[in-house]
Amino acid sequence: MSLIEPRVLKGFRDILPGQELVRRSLIRDLEQGFRTFGYVPIDTPVLEYTEVLLGKGGGETDKQIFRFTDHGNRDVAMRFDLTVPFARYMAAHLNELYLPFRRYHIGKAYRGENTQRGRYREFVQCDFDIVGTDTSSADLDILLTVVTAFEILGVTEVSVHVAHRGLFNRFLAHVDAAEQSEEILRTVDKLRKVGMENTRETLAALLDDVRAQQIMAFVTAEGGFEDIVLKLETLAGGPGEDSARMRAVYAAAVEAGAADNLQYDPSITRGLDYYTGMVFETFLTELPSIGSVCSGGRYNDLASLYTKQSLPGVGGSIGLDRLLAALDELDASGEAESAADVLIFCIDELLLGYYHGLARGLRKAGLSCEVYPEARKISAQFGFAEKKGIPTAIICGPDERASGVINGKNLRSRESFTADALPAAIQLLQDILRTS
Amino acid sequence: MSLIEPRVLKGFRDILPGQELVRRSLIRDLEQGFRTFGYVPIDTPVLEYTEVLLGKGGGETDKQIFRFTDHGNRDVAMRFDLTVPFARYMAAHLNELYLPFRRYHIGKAYRGENTQRGRYREFVQCDFDIVGTDTSSADLDILLTVVTAFEILGVTEVSVHVAHRGLFNRFLAHVDAAEQSEEILRTVDKLRKVGMENTRETLAALLDDVRAQQIMAFVTAEGGFEDIVLKLETLAGGPGEDSARMRAVYAAAVEAGAADNLQYDPSITRGLDYYTGMVFETFLTELPSIGSVCSGGRYNDLASLYTKQSLPGVGGSIGLDRLLAALDELDASGEAESAADVLIFCIDELLLGYYHGLARGLRKAGLSCEVYPEARKISAQFGFAEKKGIPTAIICGPDERASGVINGKNLRSRESFTADALPAAIQLLQDILRTS
Repeated sequence: MSLIEPRVLKGFRDILPGQELVRRSLIRDLEQGFRTFGYVPIDTPVLEYTEVLLGKGGGETDKQIFRFTDHGNRDVAMRFDLTVPFARYMAAHLNELYLPFRRYHIGKAYRGENTQRGRYREFVQCDFDIVGTDTSSADLDILLTVVTAFEILGVTEVSVHVAHRGLFNRFLAHVDAAEQSEEILRTVDKLRKVGMENTRETLAALLDDVRAQQIMAFVTAEGGFEDIVLKLETLAGGPGEDSARMRAVYAAAVEAGAADNLQYDPSITRGLDYYTGMVFETFLTELPSIGSVCSGGRYNDLASLYTKQSLPGVGGSIGLDRLLAALDELDASGEAESAADVLIFCIDELLLGYYHGLARGLRKAGLSCEVYPEARKISAQFGFAEKKGIPTAIICGPDERASGVINGKNLRSRESFTADALPAAIQLLQDILRTS
Repeated sequence: MSLIEPRVLKGFRDILPGQELVRRSLIRDLEQGFRTFGYVPIDTPVLEYTEVLLGKGGGETDKQIFRFTDHGNRDVAMRFDLTVPFARYMAAHLNELYLPFRRYHIGKAYRGENTQRGRYREFVQCDFDIVGTDTSSADLDILLTVVTAFEILGVTEVSVHVAHRGLFNRFLAHVDAAEQSEEILRTVDKLRKVGMENTRETLAALLDDVRAQQIMAFVTAEGGFEDIVLKLETLAGGPGEDSARMRAVYAAAVEAGAADNLQYDPSITRGLDYYTGMVFETFLTELPSIGSVCSGGRYNDLASLYTKQSLPGVGGSIGLDRLLAALDELDASGEAESAADVLIFCIDELLLGYYHGLARGLRKAGLSCEVYPEARKISAQFGFAEKKGIPTAIICGPDERASGVINGKNLRSRESFTADALPAAIQLLQDILRTS
């Protein structure tokens, strides 16, 4: 029989143990952060009715969606983000939940994207939202969640760029450019990529030189958070709820001792997204080139496709794959901890029960350990420990079993030790592991 | 615009926060168990080439597979277990891994099963395997992994029923029934469900009364582990590698102090699966009706579809959904821990920064807390805490902010407390949380 090539689909990938250990540890840390804010986890199906994900008749031509007809002749699709399923979820379970509802959701999503830009067609998304309240407190909560999550990951050099979509829209109306707001938002959203001059030119072609200049002045306003808000509200025609909200959020952040990582950045628009209030993107100070690692904002109404109940909310989203790449570049992704603390060598296969008994003793003392299953050459077993990065070994044969003595080794320093009995050996192993 | 019904597909489901908290805590516990044995995590794509999952031309008519043609005109399918992707993975990454390789994999899989039996079409599978070694040590390792995993979950009343497929096959050859072995395996596999008499009748119809009686004598042999192995090898014509392996595994388990949960059960065959050596199923002593919660065995060659390298292995698989249902029935699934330890009430919306500052202080001390975002009636805020099961509250207004005094409440006992400052309040909250 001819072999089948063990290939994966374009844009998909296997995750090797080293990467997966880092990913799982990152997810654990993020979850810990979310929990301290009172977010609870949920899950939704990967596969949904296409109508639910794309709206009635919507997205017929969307080539990025994995969509098909199932055996029951249903038009189904794989979720392409966690936001649309969350909207459906809220509409379906409103009576079983409590508002304001804080949830996080970590799961895979699927898009048939062009893979040339290093994007994957299967990616892990991490979303967190507070739904059912339109308040400064919830806006601030989301920003604090972002800062705290990165603190927990050991990344303190983080800058959350905040703006208010409503303030920008008010300004556009004030300078008589509201009709072109979609194109303007799209253009400004690319400012960081294409530069000032290109952006100005695009805007001038769309409107005229004067208004292009006005918009550029708006989106490049500089200064402290409160200075910028004052400048922008003046450019927008005066005070408004939008600028008042931003002031309240910032003042509270200052009082809570959490304002250092926040800055107002009027060029943040989040493109054509459905945001209506505060919007934000998050940059790593030491790695601005990687772009935003966490973004989000406030929306008027999460689930209007599915329910008449108004559900205002605010939330953020982390692309885990990009974040992992960034942390890797910063050497902040942490050691891919070795799978086991101790390798128990197999000197004699008849001593099977003895070896597994030692292993049980070590595990009860909190050490992870692996029993090498065959009496291969001792050099092969050393090689195995080295490849896996296991730092210590227990190397015992029939004599040790008879006498109860335990021989061990620090595989990094290559120092050996002998202990009278297992408890003493555990003590020595723990000392080695603590200091290595 | 008419609303879209927020429904999910038949056989799929949303997971509410209470369930998801339990599921994630279960997964964390299982992972901790796997790590102490040296297993490392991997991941593979949910979507694969159909050829890779089903073999060349295989399974054309398999209605249980979610299969479709993607935009690139590829014949693709969603994985229906974690075993086939693991086989492909081993073939693809052999040079990047080390043998023996121990991995665990927790992920979703998809089957368009008949949903009437309470099965889901999207389910979470948890597999663990040791590949690259055909030894008693690895067989025992898998059995110990099962026992330890359940110990960690707090379930000690667990019984791992072990048998050897090779010994059964040798017996069938000995009584001249090897040709019908497929049907016999399938029949015996249902013994627990359909009962002794039905099984004997089916076997008699397939063979004859004498051989049906012989097979029934084999699969219902009783006694201690070693007694049964001796009986069975006699029925199979004498000693063999299969019975020797089972003896070695059991003797080692006894020496390692881990034999209490093992029993030889000759009726375990694992139906038509690809197992060649030891097979096992795991039953909860207090809940036998739910069936096996963890099963597996030894296979000759994991990845022969994809590579010429022989990869013998042994492994087990836990259906997480069934296990969760079982633990729930045993009340062993653990409290769905409340999302937060403390609710910080909102008495005055102008005190936003003060409230979030208190929250930061609590979190730094290791407490999880949630800031109520609006100055709703105090009864509404109490109701919210009660619904979410938050056990304590901090209830402060402008006076407390001015004086630095903190008012708190144990929401279970309804006792209030007043602390001079935040550190004292944290101490009191921690005392309440410890004892409640």
